[in-house]
Parts: sequence; structure tokens; C-alpha cells
Amino acid sequence: MGRFSLLTGCLTGGLGLTAALGLVFLLATNHIRNGRNEEKDLLTLEDFEDYIMNNVDPQSIRQFLRNLTTLPHLGGTEEEWQMSTLISDTWHQQGMDEVHMVPYEVLLSYPSKEVPNLVRLVDQDGGAAWASAPKQKPLYSPEESNPDIPFTFNGYAAPGNVTGDAVYVNYGRSQDFKTLSEKGINLEGKIVIARYGKIFRANIAQMAEDLGAVGLVLFSDPSDYAPEGPEFVFPRSYFLPPSAAPFGTVKLVDGDPLTPFYPATKSAFHIPMAEAPIPTIPVQPIGYEDAWQILRYYGGFPAPEEWQGGLNITYNLGPGFFQPGWKLNLDVNNNNTHTTTYNVIGVIKGRVEPDRYVLLGNHIDAWIFGGLDPNSGTAAMLELSRVLTKLVKEKGWRPRRSLVFCAWGAEEYGIVGSLEWTEQFGKQLADRAVAYLNVDMAIEGNYTLRTKSAPLLYQFKKGKKNVFLFHKIPNPDPEETKAGRLTVYDTWALRKPDPVEPNSPLMQFIGSGSDYKGFQHNLGIPCMDTRYTYSDRTLGEPQYHTLYETFALVDEIYDRGFHFHKAVTVLWGYITLRLSEPEILPFSLDAYATFISRASNSILEKYGDLISSQNITMDYFTAAVRRFKSTTSAFWNSTEKLDRENPLAVRHVNDQLMMVERAFIDARGLPGRPDYNHVVTAPSKNDAYSGTAFAGLSDTLYSLQVAPDDLRADLWVTFSQHLAAVTHALETASGVLTDELW
Amino acid sequence: MGRFSLLTGCLTGGLGLTAALGLVFLLATNHIRNGRNEEKDLLTLEDFEDYIMNNVDPQSIRQFLRNLTTLPHLGGTEEEWQMSTLISDTWHQQGMDEVHMVPYEVLLSYPSKEVPNLVRLVDQDGGAAWASAPKQKPLYSPEESNPDIPFTFNGYAAPGNVTGDAVYVNYGRSQDFKTLSEKGINLEGKIVIARYGKIFRANIAQMAEDLGAVGLVLFSDPSDYAPEGPEFVFPRSYFLPPSAAPFGTVKLVDGDPLTPFYPATKSAFHIPMAEAPIPTIPVQPIGYEDAWQILRYYGGFPAPEEWQGGLNITYNLGPGFFQPGWKLNLDVNNNNTHTTTYNVIGVIKGRVEPDRYVLLGNHIDAWIFGGLDPNSGTAAMLELSRVLTKLVKEKGWRPRRSLVFCAWGAEEYGIVGSLEWTEQFGKQLADRAVAYLNVDMAIEGNYTLRTKSAPLLYQFKKGKKNVFLFHKIPNPDPEETKAGRLTVYDTWALRKPDPVEPNSPLMQFIGSGSDYKGFQHNLGIPCMDTRYTYSDRTLGEPQYHTLYETFALVDEIYDRGFHFHKAVTVLWGYITLRLSEPEILPFSLDAYATFISRASNSILEKYGDLISSQNITMDYFTAAVRRFKSTTSAFWNSTEKLDRENPLAVRHVNDQLMMVERAFIDARGLPGRPDYNHVVTAPSKNDAYSGTAFAGLSDTLYSLQVAPDDLRADLWVTFSQHLAAVTHALETASGVLTDELW
Repeated sequence: MGRFSLLTGCLTGGLGLTAALGLVFLLATNHIRNGRNEEKDLLTLEDFEDYIMNNVDPQSIRQFLRNLTTLPHLGGTEEEWQMSTLISDTWHQQGMDEVHMVPYEVLLSYPSKEVPNLVRLVDQDGGAAWASAPKQKPLYSPEESNPDIPFTFNGYAAPGNVTGDAVYVNYGRSQDFKTLSEKGINLEGKIVIARYGKIFRANIAQMAEDLGAVGLVLFSDPSDYAPEGPEFVFPRSYFLPPSAAPFGTVKLVDGDPLTPFYPATKSAFHIPMAEAPIPTIPVQPIGYEDAWQILRYYGGFPAPEEWQGGLNITYNLGPGFFQPGWKLNLDVNNNNTHTTTYNVIGVIKGRVEPDRYVLLGNHIDAWIFGGLDPNSGTAAMLELSRVLTKLVKEKGWRPRRSLVFCAWGAEEYGIVGSLEWTEQFGKQLADRAVAYLNVDMAIEGNYTLRTKSAPLLYQFKKGKKNVFLFHKIPNPDPEETKAGRLTVYDTWALRKPDPVEPNSPLMQFIGSGSDYKGFQHNLGIPCMDTRYTYSDRTLGEPQYHTLYETFALVDEIYDRGFHFHKAVTVLWGYITLRLSEPEILPFSLDAYATFISRASNSILEKYGDLISSQNITMDYFTAAVRRFKSTTSAFWNSTEKLDRENPLAVRHVNDQLMMVERAFIDARGLPGRPDYNHVVTAPSKNDAYSGTAFAGLSDTLYSLQVAPDDLRADLWVTFSQHLAAVTHALETASGVLTDELW
Repeated sequence: MGRFSLLTGCLTGGLGLTAALGLVFLLATNHIRNGRNEEKDLLTLEDFEDYIMNNVDPQSIRQFLRNLTTLPHLGGTEEEWQMSTLISDTWHQQGMDEVHMVPYEVLLSYPSKEVPNLVRLVDQDGGAAWASAPKQKPLYSPEESNPDIPFTFNGYAAPGNVTGDAVYVNYGRSQDFKTLSEKGINLEGKIVIARYGKIFRANIAQMAEDLGAVGLVLFSDPSDYAPEGPEFVFPRSYFLPPSAAPFGTVKLVDGDPLTPFYPATKSAFHIPMAEAPIPTIPVQPIGYEDAWQILRYYGGFPAPEEWQGGLNITYNLGPGFFQPGWKLNLDVNNNNTHTTTYNVIGVIKGRVEPDRYVLLGNHIDAWIFGGLDPNSGTAAMLELSRVLTKLVKEKGWRPRRSLVFCAWGAEEYGIVGSLEWTEQFGKQLADRAVAYLNVDMAIEGNYTLRTKSAPLLYQFKKGKKNVFLFHKIPNPDPEETKAGRLTVYDTWALRKPDPVEPNSPLMQFIGSGSDYKGFQHNLGIPCMDTRYTYSDRTLGEPQYHTLYETFALVDEIYDRGFHFHKAVTVLWGYITLRLSEPEILPFSLDAYATFISRASNSILEKYGDLISSQNITMDYFTAAVRRFKSTTSAFWNSTEKLDRENPLAVRHVNDQLMMVERAFIDARGLPGRPDYNHVVTAPSKNDAYSGTAFAGLSDTLYSLQVAPDDLRADLWVTFSQHLAAVTHALETASGVLTDELW
């Protein structure tokens, strides 16, 4: 009797819907014995979405965030364990079907509790003329003065006490080091100082180490993070205060450094510490007020114009200082420590396909309080799980596929907990996981939505059958609403337009740098990472990884009322339902084929002449790209004849869709990068944060352009070898869709 | 109306059954829309089995064998292509749903057409005192005189003309080389002569090359292959005649040697020839009449008693000859050649689960005529496909799962066609293949059945619910029948008893050496290899790989009437049906757990003290073994509650069963052996033919017993590392059965 109104009406009142749902869910659960989705005519996805929209509560998110940000909780500490327990208890209380803590015994890194890490200027007599701050200065919230706040450090930076001439290396990118080399500045034995923000800090450390530098000092430049000057910074704004020294890992390879490729369980084999992929040089972050103390004494040539930053001095390159005999001293007292970190895994079991998983996750650990990173995301996750378990408890609803909620340990140390988990359960996940939806931070700003994703999930931007997910979410920004942009989509389209499709927002290509790494890049499970982000006034969210990333920063500056949090939570729920409920997985094969086609063209445009100079044919590769495109079209056509009443026929199609991403996984890894297996989506090796298609090809071609003659022959072999591997992967992606074994 | 009699009666008359089947199949096909096996109550597996038994025709098999053995058809030749076409045409005519030729461009090896390979005795002046036969002598069938029969050679033996002192190395096993080393006999610069039969010839070549030998000559000793003396040999018996020089590959790594890990498609990358895993020394087989010519002149100490063979001389070790200045000369003129070999793939599409494959296969190529190897198997396969396609055409029957028939190219060269195919379609096969059933030879003797298999298929020995497959097949041996052993099982149990379970036949552990290699050892698809075999009067089937392996050998000596062929064909069909028809895959988890448990105990018994001397704990490993055992028991108990009316629930269980074998696949390979991935079933690295459980562990422990002190530390690291990998694989095998992600 409620059925007609559900199908045709547009119920927005919570109570009316809830009452009607009660009946229909009851009907539904009586109709699932054959494993088919017979209730699909009774209740639409839109009804579920309304339920989420009506139940996600900003004040509840706010309370979760408050509870998650009371203590510093670095990975592998007692305080991280307390947060894991809080999440686990919450999920138990919410009534998840399963909640478990999954421990890994890993190598993490901590500063000394007694002796701070310091950067010093030492005079000709070896005396310290000046030293950097041991900790960041408390500026606003009481918890900033917590005595347990660790000394400022970078995770896995080698302990050591080094003294030497100093060189400024701009952002520490390969082109920056190249510029220095062209100027004849040798880094051997030097301590380099780099401003942070363009590339992952572990890449800077690696390059500095490779060039013979003995230490690295990192700071965030005010031109990048405090564009309105030293007066208008936190707590007066969200801009970076002079004392902020962002923490962060300098380990380049993801996961526990001592158990590569295998899970860090009790039975694991540990490689010797000397072989661990962590820096051998000390690295230390400082605030820009401290950077100013160093850079203002710098000698040598002035740095190029575009290397000049926002400090009120001329940035010189070094090496050395104006004062005769002055040197830079870097004193790092970190400890690499064997400890245990925990993932928390909670499951809402699927109704029809319990052995197919839609995974949602975020990490637990924070560099200090983690007001944004990660706890804005975790607060959203706990709220979403609250609403979905409520639906289970109140209505007897269950998702078609299982929902697996994941809270990861020690992500900040370089994606440790999640990667160990994907190593431990990789076989099961490769077989069963539909997608992994990551929300590392619900917000890192309030400017616009930003989503990175595997091309297989690009269709969520557009939706199908007139369902535009992002259009359905009211704009959390009152200014934007006033300007007539009523939805999340509208602001997103305006502020992050797709250069290829104007008037449409850019759905960014998945890179790396968060917990989706193992899923996307090792297992071939399509991933998405969603958040509200900052404008281009700064290079990144200014307080990222600093002491000032507190509850107050969120509650009083970024998201008063938690409407941005609600928008992301609801969106996360919508996408989860779009992946868990439809009989046929809504993967955008067409977008993937288009993406691959463009990436292939871009390589040919950029490097076609270089390649043909070697008599290497790209014909098989381009033919495989074309075949993938035509195969994907034919595949959807063939599914129109699908007997949807036949659950095994439906499963067959879904398995094919799932296997497309798996097809791009090469068990042997990318050239020189055995820890990346996805031949399409792996990020460029020169910057682990950025997403570049066919990185194995383009990185090798890039190297060929700059390599000395004696290395070129080997690089061409590498290129040809990987080209064949990529071509094979493309053919496999077509093959899983045609079912042909010939 | 025929239903009651089908369920209760025991119809053996072909016609009555056929008529009844007609009706029931019609009923069945009307009931499959929901993808469920609703007809299972109407028609039993036993009915299908009766159909096979009644329709497999010995005379039809005989005719297939005759057609397949008319020409020499080495892999990659025009003649192999003709045989591929014959198979393809046959399957088209039989009415398979799909038949395709799958080409690979590979590196094979042929003798010169002009210049024979010769072994010579050269005198002090360098003149040839004697030379071996260029070809094997025609003895019986007209085709033995075909001028296209190639000069005698070993596949991939390096071309070269070497002269030196000769050393006899017995069977060329590691213990034989060790004996020589203890006697102070250095192989540097020597040509070694080995009798063939205990280990794979490529292993002998590898060890000889590693020890500095410059050439290898192989012969089959009459004591091993002609125990009744030179008078009672082929064509008077199946024993080895003096002129027989068996061909065979000396490539150690399987598949195309230039495209490791990737398929040899047009777009493949080829490693340089210098890096190909093929010998750098010439190797040549000779008949024992020619071996006698060499060995009778041998000097040095007499070989140990157990090294003495059946030639009427004293076998001396060498080096050198009695005659002063005499040397052995080995002149090999083989060519490594890029050529194309074809697999033929034929499919009978499944009714309910078309995306699940039961694969059946054998190779096409033969070293010469291949009367036994492979064509006795191929004749059986063509007969089985004839009968099953007849069932499809006449009755509208289809198997529940798809049947994929595979005829492989260039197996004799070291498993080339099938391995390239598993490399090309590995992702699809790992996802979809239920099992691979290989029959390389239907018969290599008529003494008893011999089957090697993955432990997951051990249950076919016993069957379930009183169905003993092997009991149902009448004994093809009239002598045995007369003696009261009425079935294949009876003779098998008598002649190949299981040492652990007396009165029961031994189901051997799968090794390697045929086309199941990629399936079992790289993809983790359970495999079985079945044949009728020889008695222990010889070390192997005497005519194996020789000129005399003709149609006549089969038709007039081994299997007059082709009843042994029929027995194997029927059995192959039965096992195929047992894998393709049941809703729940009949995998013997319990047998696997028992097998693993015993293997673990055996390692502990043999090496426990050695391991504990290093303070390496085996506790995690043994706990994982115990957990696997308890998990498998609990799994079957849990399936008792399974709702078999729910096709997705049934699929869930089957996927778990399939994943057990996949769990043992380690993408990183075994220690030092990246081409073997299965941590349980990989054969020992010292002999590619034998099956040893946990070869990565036991090989390393074996090496540790004999390694010099300076290598031991590294070997212990290897052991510990692999022990952790194996433990992880065992935990994964349990994990896929529990569905737990923690």
C-alpha cells in the first residue's frame, strides 16, 4: 500500500519515508531467498539516498571529531591504540556485524623524548650562533600546550649530527637539482634546505641523498602558505604561522619498511635494517621564522627569480654563509622503533552478494591532533556508519554487497597499516573487492570539492539515467548558494573545471599518497579519494601536519556548523550505495577507454619522434588501445541482451567488469619499481603524489631525454620490455570483456 | 515417465538410455533459466557416465591415432601445423561451439638438414676412428624410412664442435657428480657421457655445464631399457633396440626461452639470445650400440659397481681412453630458429556457469611420430570430444560448466605452447578455471594406471557417496580380468599400492614435465595427469622419444584392440563430468590438509634439528598447517547449512574452493626460481620431473646440508624468508575458507 507513493512520490520528510520504508524492507527481506534483487522495483536508490541525507547529522560529526582530536596520536603509539579502540567500540555500539582489530608489527620512527632535533648555525669556533625551535609554539587551543606533543621531526629521518655548508634547492624537484648542477654547485657533503610543497618530501630526501648531500632541512615558505603576510595567519586565519613546522614521513616505499611485499604479521621475515628503504641522512622540518634565520646569512649567487620566496630577504643559493667559517649543523635524534599498529575492520554483511565488498576507509593516526588529516574523514566515516547501521537496525535493510569499513594504522608513516592489510588479504580482495572509497580528510579547506579517482569511477561525475550525484547535494557554502550555485556540483564545476570539458568539473586522476595505494596500485581495485579542498591561494592546506591542525581550526575557521563535513559524508554514502546496490556494477568502461586513448596519444605526441628514431614500433600498443575502446563499446551492447533474472549471468558480467582493473596489474611491477603493479595508474616515480598515466612508459621516456649516452641503450631495452608488458595488459583488459581465450 | 526408471534402474543398454535421455534433457533445458541445476533430480551423473562408456569406441580411437602418426611432426614445423589443422578440423566437424588456433612466435631448435650431428672417436692424428649413427635405423614400419626424419639431436643443444677427454657420469645426478668430485675427477674441458633415465636431461646438461664440461653425450643403457638382452627388443618386444637414440629438450626453463613471464605474441619483447636459458654446450643422444663403441675404449678407474650398466664391458670413469692420444669429438649442428607454433582451443560452452572452465588438454607435437607421446593422448581427447559433442548434438545436453579442450604446440621443446597460453590468459584462467586434466599419453605401457595429481583432486581415487570412479571401468587387461581383477582400480591397487594406505592405489603427487606446468605451478589451478604406464622392469617406456614410437608399436604391441585407450578415455570423461557437473566442486580439502600436514612433519623430522640449531622457529609454520587442517573441516561443516537453491551462495562456496589452490601461489616465486610460484606443489629444483612438497623449503634445507660454510648464512636467510612466505600462503588458504579479513 505504500508502494505506489514510494515509486512516484518525492518524500523528503524523514518520518513519512521511514514508516513507508519499514513495510517495504519487510517485503524485501522476504524476497531474497533466490539471491536476486527482487525488491528493486519496490524501493529505489533515491529512497536510500534520501534516508542518508535526512539522517546525516552535522552535530554528530562534530562530536566525533571532538572525540578524535583530544590527544596527539602518532602511528604505533598508545594514543593511536586508544583511537583505534574508540573506533572499534563505536562500531560495536552501532551494531556492525563484525568488528576486528588487525595488528601489524612494524618499524616506525619517533623523535627522542629527551633530546630535541635542532638545526643550528655554528660559528667559526664551532659554537652555536643560533638554534631552531624544538617544538612548535602553542598559539590558540589549550591542547597545543600538551606536554606529550613530540619534538618536531620527520618520520624515518636518520639520526645523525652533521655539519656543513648549506645550499638552497628551491622545491627540491629534479629540475631544481638540475639547475644547481648546471650552475656548477655540487651537493656532495652539503646540507640542503628546500621549501616544501610541490613534490612529496621523501622524493626530495632521496634526490638529495643520491647527490651526496649529508642532510636536508625543509620549511614551508610564506609565499606558498601565508600569502597575506605574517599578521594574517592562524589563529586569525587559516594561513600558516611562522612557527609551523609540518611533520611528515621521508620513507619513499609504502608499507612497513622491513617486510616488503609480505604482511608484517608475527610470522613475517624482516629484512636487515640496513636494507630498509629509508633515508640514511638526517632530515628536519622547521618553521619559516627559523628558515629566515638561516637563509638571511646565505652566501653564494642569488637564487633565480622564480626561486625567491616570501621571506623578506634575497634567497641566495649558497654554498656557505656570509660570515666566514659559519656552517649549518643538523642534529637529529630520532629512533626507528619496532611497534604494533592496528587496523580496525568493521563489516555490514551483504544481503545478496556477501562475498563482494565495497570498502570505505581512512587512517587513524595523526601527526599531532589531526583535526583535518585524518579526523575530519574519520568523523565522516563514523557518521556514515552510524546512519547505515541505523538503517540495518531499524529497517532490516542490508546492502546488496557487503560494506567493509576500514580504519588504518600508521598511514602517516607511509601507508603502513593499509598496505600490510592489502598484502595480507590481497588474494581475497583481488577476487572480491568492488571498489575502495577513501576519505583521508573530509575537508582540507572549504573552497570546492576535489575528487581523485580511477577512471572506472569517473561516471559518478555524470551519473546515469539522469542521476547526477553531485547535483543532489546542497551547497554547504552559503556565499555560493547566495550566488545561485545551489549544489556541490555547481561550485565544483566553477572552481575546478575540466579543461577538456568546460562547464563540467574535473574529476582528477588517482595519484598516490594515501591508503588507497595498495588497492589501486597493487591489487587493481578501483579507488576514489574525496574531500573538500583549498583554493589556489596556497600550495596546500597550510596547517597540514602541523600543531595547529586542531579541532578549533575546523570548528571555528573551516567548517562552522559542519555543513561541509555533511556534504562529504552524504556524497560518500551516495557513492557507496551506487556501488553496493545495483545489480550491474556501474563502472565507466567508456571513460576508461577514452582516458587510455588520450594518454596514449599524449605519449605519442610527446615522444613519438624519439621512439621512432629507435625503430621501435608503437603499432601493437596503439592497436591494443583501439581494441580496448571498441571492446568496451561492444561489451555494453552485449549486456543489453543479458538475462537479469539469472543471478549467475549477472555475476558473470560483474566479474568481467571487476577484472578490467585487475588486467592492468603486472605481477612483475613497473620498471625499477616492484612496489607498483598497475601499468596505467601508477604515479610518476619522480613524484609519488601525482597521477600520470602509463608512468612506466613516460618515466622511462623522460629519463631517456636526460640520460647520459652510456645509459641510453639500457633504458631503451627497459622501454621496449615495458611497452610489451603494457600492451599485454591492454589485451588482457579486452580479453576479460570478450571471454575469448585466443 | 522415464524418470522413475532413470533414478532407480541400472540401465546399461545404450538405446534404452539414449531414448530416456532424450526426454529428460529436453526437460532439463527448459529448467535452467534461473541458472540453477534443477534437472539434477532428473538425471544422475551415473547416467552421463553410462553414455560415455557406451559411446567411446576403441576403433575410433585407433583411427584417430593412425591419422595423427603418419608424419614426423616436431613443434613449430609445417607438419605440426598440419596436425593442428587436423585437430581443429575435427573439432569443427564435431560441432564444438568455438574452435581457434592460437599462434605463438617462439624460439625452437632443429638439427641441420644437411650436416648430421655426430659423436666421433678421434685418434692421435685427429682422424676419426669411429662415428655415431646420423639417424636411427629403420626396423619395422615403412614410415621409419621417411627421408624427412630429422638427424638425431637434442632440442636447444648448442651447436659446436668440441674435442676432449671423456668422463662417464652414470645418471648425471648431483650425487653422481659429487662422487666424481670426491674421486678427484675434474670435468673442466671434458665431454661427459651419461646414461639417461633417472632425472630430466636438461638438469644433467645444466650440472655438466656448471662443472665446466664442454659437451654431453646421452644414451639409454640396456640394463634400464632392454633387460632381456639384445635379442628381445623392438620390434620383437617393447624393449629398446640398440640403435634407439631418444630425442628430447635440454632447455631447463619452460616456455619460449626468449619471452620469460610474458606471452610470445607479436608484440612481445625478446630477451637477447645470449640470455636465453638454454645450454651453451653441445649435447647429443646416441643409441647404446654407439655408447658401447665409446665406453669400451674408456680409461681411468673402473666406475663403481652400481654405475655398471648392461653393456658387455666394464664401465670405466675416464678421463681419456686406453689408446694414447684418443679423444672424443662432439659435432652438433643444430639451429635455434624463430618459428610459429599453434595451440588449438575448442570449447563446449557451459549451460549454467559458462564462465567456469574445466580444461582438458594434450600436446600436438611429437619428437618423431609420437605413437605414444603425445598421440595416444590426443587420440583419446578427440574421441572424448566426439562423444561429448555427440551428446550435445543429439540430446541438447550441455555441461554445467564450460569444457575447454586444448591441443598444445611445441610441448616437447619444454612446454612452450601451453605455458605461453597460461601467460597470455593467466588472469582469466586464475579467475575462472576449475581444473586442468592432462593426458600427455593415454598409454606408455599397459601394466597399470598411473595418475599424478594435485591433492585437491585426490578424492577421485575414493569418490564420494559410494562412487568409486576407477572401480567403474572394466579392466582392459584380459589376463588381469582372468585373475579376478575386474576393474582398472583392482590392478592399479595391486601394482601401484599406496605405501600409507595398503590395499589402496597410490595417487601420485603432481610433478612437472608436461603441459599442466603453467596451470598448476604458476596459476594455482589443480591439475591431474593420467595414463596407463609400464612396469618397473624398465626405467621408462623404452621407445619414448625414439623413431620406434610408431602406430605399429601401439597397435601391435601395447594395445591391440585399443581397450587400454578406451579405459583412459572413459576415465578422463568421468573425471571431467565430476568436475563440470556438481553444483559444489568436489575438491578434497581434507586430502590437501592431510598431505600438507604430512609434508610438514616430514620436513620437521628430516631437518628439525638443523633448523633449531639456528634458533629459527617453525612454530608459525606448524600453527598455520594445523589451522588449515581445522579450517578445512569446519568449512565442509558450514556448507551443510548452505542454501543450495541460492545460486550465488553456491558460487560463493565454489569460489572459496577454487581460491584454496590460488592461495599457494606466490607472485614472487620460489627461492631462486621465479618461474615456479606454487609454494606447496613445485617440483624439486634438482629434478624437474619429481614432485616434492614445499620444494622451496626442502631444496634450501638440502642445499644447507651440502653447502660450503661461506654460503650458509645466505641460505639461512633464504630459508627464513621463504618460510615466512609459505606460512603466509597457508594462512591465506585458511583465510579464503573463513572469509575473514582479520
